[in-house]
Formats: sequence, C-alpha cells, structure tokens
Amino acid sequence: MLPVDEFGLIERLFAPLAKGFPGALDLKDDAALVAPSPGCSIVVTADALVAGEHFLPTDPPDAVARKAVRTNISDLAAMAAKPLALLLTIALPRDITIEWLDGFAAGLKMDIEEFGVSLIGGDTVATAGPMALSITAMGEAEPARTLRRSNARSGDVVWVSGSIGDGALGLFVELGQGTGIDPSLSAFLLDRYRLPRPRVALGRALPGLAHAAMDISDGLVGDLGHICDVSDVGAVIEADKVPLSAAARAAISAGWGKGLETVLTGGDDYELLFTAPESATEALRVLSDSLALPLTPIGRVVAGKGVCVMHGGQRLTIDRGGHRHF
Amino acid sequence: MLPVDEFGLIERLFAPLAKGFPGALDLKDDAALVAPSPGCSIVVTADALVAGEHFLPTDPPDAVARKAVRTNISDLAAMAAKPLALLLTIALPRDITIEWLDGFAAGLKMDIEEFGVSLIGGDTVATAGPMALSITAMGEAEPARTLRRSNARSGDVVWVSGSIGDGALGLFVELGQGTGIDPSLSAFLLDRYRLPRPRVALGRALPGLAHAAMDISDGLVGDLGHICDVSDVGAVIEADKVPLSAAARAAISAGWGKGLETVLTGGDDYELLFTAPESATEALRVLSDSLALPLTPIGRVVAGKGVCVMHGGQRLTIDRGGHRHF
Repeated sequence: MLPVDEFGLIERLFAPLAKGFPGALDLKDDAALVAPSPGCSIVVTADALVAGEHFLPTDPPDAVARKAVRTNISDLAAMAAKPLALLLTIALPRDITIEWLDGFAAGLKMDIEEFGVSLIGGDTVATAGPMALSITAMGEAEPARTLRRSNARSGDVVWVSGSIGDGALGLFVELGQGTGIDPSLSAFLLDRYRLPRPRVALGRALPGLAHAAMDISDGLVGDLGHICDVSDVGAVIEADKVPLSAAARAAISAGWGKGLETVLTGGDDYELLFTAPESATEALRVLSDSLALPLTPIGRVVAGKGVCVMHGGQRLTIDRGGHRHF
Repeated sequence: MLPVDEFGLIERLFAPLAKGFPGALDLKDDAALVAPSPGCSIVVTADALVAGEHFLPTDPPDAVARKAVRTNISDLAAMAAKPLALLLTIALPRDITIEWLDGFAAGLKMDIEEFGVSLIGGDTVATAGPMALSITAMGEAEPARTLRRSNARSGDVVWVSGSIGDGALGLFVELGQGTGIDPSLSAFLLDRYRLPRPRVALGRALPGLAHAAMDISDGLVGDLGHICDVSDVGAVIEADKVPLSAAARAAISAGWGKGLETVLTGGDDYELLFTAPESATEALRVLSDSLALPLTPIGRVVAGKGVCVMHGGQRLTIDRGGHRHF
C-alpha cells in the first residue's frame, strides 16, 4: 500500500517534471497543449516496456525510467526531430514501493533535463501483473528536414554511428551470463544495455546528407532489412567493417552467445543506421569529428532485395535477423 | 502462438487504420508527423487500461478497443479539441488469439471512422501478465478556444451533459450483479458502461460559454472536487437535479450498490461537467437543443472549498468521491 493515492503520486513524482512547459497545465487538466515552432510539424512516437520482457523487476528504477525515455527519444532522433515532450502511462503492481517510484521519478528527471523535454501528461493505473509502461515522445521538425526509412537508393553507402552489439552483449551481463572478460569491460557493456545514447544531434544534422535512416533497436541486420524493404532495394554489408567496442571484441573472443551473430542481430543498440550518397562521405567525416561520434561506412545499398552480410570474403548465413516478440 | 509476427500484426491489424493520414507513413517509420492547422496547437492526452482493472478479459474485444479510444477522445472533448490521431501501445499475453486481435482491430476501425481520426503509431509487445494497453490521443484547437478545469468562478452554474451514473451501474450488469430491473434497462446500462459517448461536439461549442470543464471519469462528486480545487472555489449541487436515465432510476429503486451514492461517485460517465455564468444559460439551452443532448444545471459554484451535495434539503454525507486505483 502506497502512502499516497493516484493524485498524490502525480503531485509527488510527476508534476515537478512538467514545470517549465506551460502547456502541460501542471498535469492538472484533461490534456496538454503543444505548439510546434513555426514551419514545424509534430513528430510523435510511442514505445511500451514490460517488466520481465524489456527490463528486469530487479533493475535499478532510475535505469528503467531512463531506458524508457531514451528508446523513444532515439526514435525521434531517427526522424531528425528535436525532442519536446513526453507522456507516460504506467501500470503498477500493487506491491510497488514508494522507494521504487521515487527512484523511477529521479531517473525521469535526469533524462528530462538531459534531453531538454518535459513530462506533459499520462496516466497511473494498477495491474495484477508485471509493471507495464508506455511512453509517447513528441518532437518537432520541419517536414522537409525529416528522415525516413524509405528513401535508400542503390549505390548509397550504409553507415552506422557509434559501436554495434554492446547493448545485446550487455544483456548477457545483466543476466549473469557475461563472464571471462575484464570487469571494466562487462560494466561498459551493461551500461550500454541499460542506458542507450539516442543520437539526437546526429539525427538533426543528417537531413540533406542521408537518404534514409532509422535507429537500431531490433538488430543491425534486421533493421537494415526494414530500410531495404520499404525502400525497395537490397544491401551488402561487411561484418569486418561493423564498428565494435573493445568490450564487444573481448566478449566475442570469450565466446558469449553466438559471437559476431549476436552483435549483428541482437539489437538494443539505439545507434543510427543510415544510407547516404558517396558524395556525402566527406561531410559525414567532418560531422563525425564535430560530434565526437564515430560514423562508420559498413557497406552499400544495391539493387534487389534483402541484406547480404559478407565475412572474410564469404557470405555469412544468419539464422534470424531482428527480435521477435511472439 | 499467433500465425504472424509483430510486423505481420501491424500489417494485418493496424496499418489499414493509418490510411488517409499521410504523416502516419503507413506505420513503417520510426515516428509519425502531425501538422496542426494554422493557429492551432496540438492537444494531447494518454490513458492506460489493464485487463481485470478497466475491462474484463471476457469482454468483447471490439468493445475493449472502443472504450479505450473513447475514454481518450473524451479527454480531448473536455479541452474543446478536434480529434486528429491516436497512438496505441499494447502488451499482449502470449495466449492471445488472432480472433481476439481481429475483433479488437474491428472495434478500433469503427471508432476511428466514427471520430474521424487515424492510428498513426504505437508498439506491440508481449507480457506474462494481463493485457495492458495505452492510447495517446492527439487533437487540435486554437489555444484561446480551449477549456480548462481551473477557471470556475463563484456564482457560476454547474452543468452536466447527458445522464449520470449509467456507466457505474452498467458495471453491476457486467459483473452479473445487476438484477431486478427490466432486461432492456440493464442492457442500456451495460452499453453505457462499455461504450462511452465522448461529447466532442459539445466540447467544441463550449469555449466562450463555459468557464471550466472536464469529463467525468472518476465520479461526478470527485471530479467536481477537482474543478473546485484547481479553481480555488467550492460548489453546492442538488442530488435531485442530477439527470438520471430511466434505467438508473430503476436500478436505484432495485437497490443496486449504494443507490444514489453510486450514481454520484461511481464514474465511467464520460459526460462533460462544466461551469458557466448565469448569462450563458439561454445559449446553453439552445445548444442543448441543437445537439439533441440534454444539458442540465445541477448547482452552483460558491466561494470556499469542497463540494456539498444537498438531498431533500439536507446535506448528503458521501463516503468517498472518486475512484482510487491504489
């Protein structure tokens, strides 16, 4: 039994996160008002997370909140939108503690400040099952300066930001299955699993340079497959070019999971995957330097269908690209 | 095991509901684009529903979908917004059937057409617990022509639309506890519980007439208390003036629940509760006629705090106003 009712929870946990956004109406009204800047449209996305599926009930509550925020912000980044506001609905088990909720709200606060957004609405309900939460993230962008998945063109270079596979390997650490590497490396991987880094600044800079983009949540190969499907093209990537962290290299050497295949298909990267014409290469290298964020070409868009992964001159056969929920 | 994966589900169930809204990008991208009309802001709200809490797992799936949509549209109506678009996140138990999902999508389709909106995004995930769903509804309105809870003024008349208590009494029917009245009346109440009627046209017409408004979801007395709290006023209402359907009168006579108290505090009405100056009375009567929707004055806003319910010349003592989740 919590020491406060639903309205007390809103007042204690969430209303402070609405300050500074007049249209949130202090979370005291039926809805919130969001006015995009002149020339801009609202860009909106929603993701759900369930305890036991997307995070563990034993995860630190601030990390749960931050991951929920960041997976949504990452979707805005992939569309080149500037994040504005969040709505949160949360179904709480009846044995939830106020300590857990305070920790969750502290995590929300950290990321709301980090990404310059406000919490402008939502709903708090009870459930007899595992905690379920849903975040809707709203951003803004000029429609002509947004990114889509559907515009990849044959001949484009395929790029990724950051390093790939750290999140998927971090899950092994989370589950206690990540052993045989230096503890500092496993801590790095766990952090990357728990705390995605949405590439907002990169996304905002890509219109005019990239043809197609998305964020990698379901695995590099599967997500590149989505870009190919909706763009009606194929792609060939070289596994050796996929940027790996030192920790990921160590984990592969230590035999975690399916090694390179886990890296290429595991997901939870929240890096940007994009295609750009060869002519943009120099500008992308300059952008990489200015953002202090590695941008790495890993292959090519080609005519045809599907994603072909080359490794040591041979085509790699990959069981399954992308995460299936069912 | 469903015959399709997550992407198949989206294609089968949800993508058809995005047609006609170009910014939905056929649900194939990371986010959707929503451009409000010139001069308008986006009005946004989110509600969560959990099986076993807000609906029963045995409820018809189309009714579950429609209630989820309508509770959100009702929040937009209370702000005087024109509904535009919905996002849906849904956590599905692994034993969900495709028949249930097809029924759910059919219900969504009905209401998406009825309210002239589109489904523009969301997420489908799995849960080991009861189904949980969250809808974010987006509308638009000129900021100067929106309604708030916070503007009730001493001397205002308190109004409600439609009839009160039908939803709360319908829950008795749903739970098999509603007996002793004519079956056509219990069917009416069940329908009102399952299928709220968001008062969109009324909400759109109220700016300029009403000072404060909200939709009644947690119970008339509790929700009027919210208006009073945020407006820093009190209210006196007369229970005898609260408009009741013939079915509600029959249920009270048959001794359902706590009778009148259930009607006044039970919630699930989704009627609009609003306050308006005396000078608006004639215009509201004309509006009522033109909408073919009863609008009934039930009391007054007064200086002070809290809601006083009068009944037969005496002050009615009510245990608890409003629904508590925890």
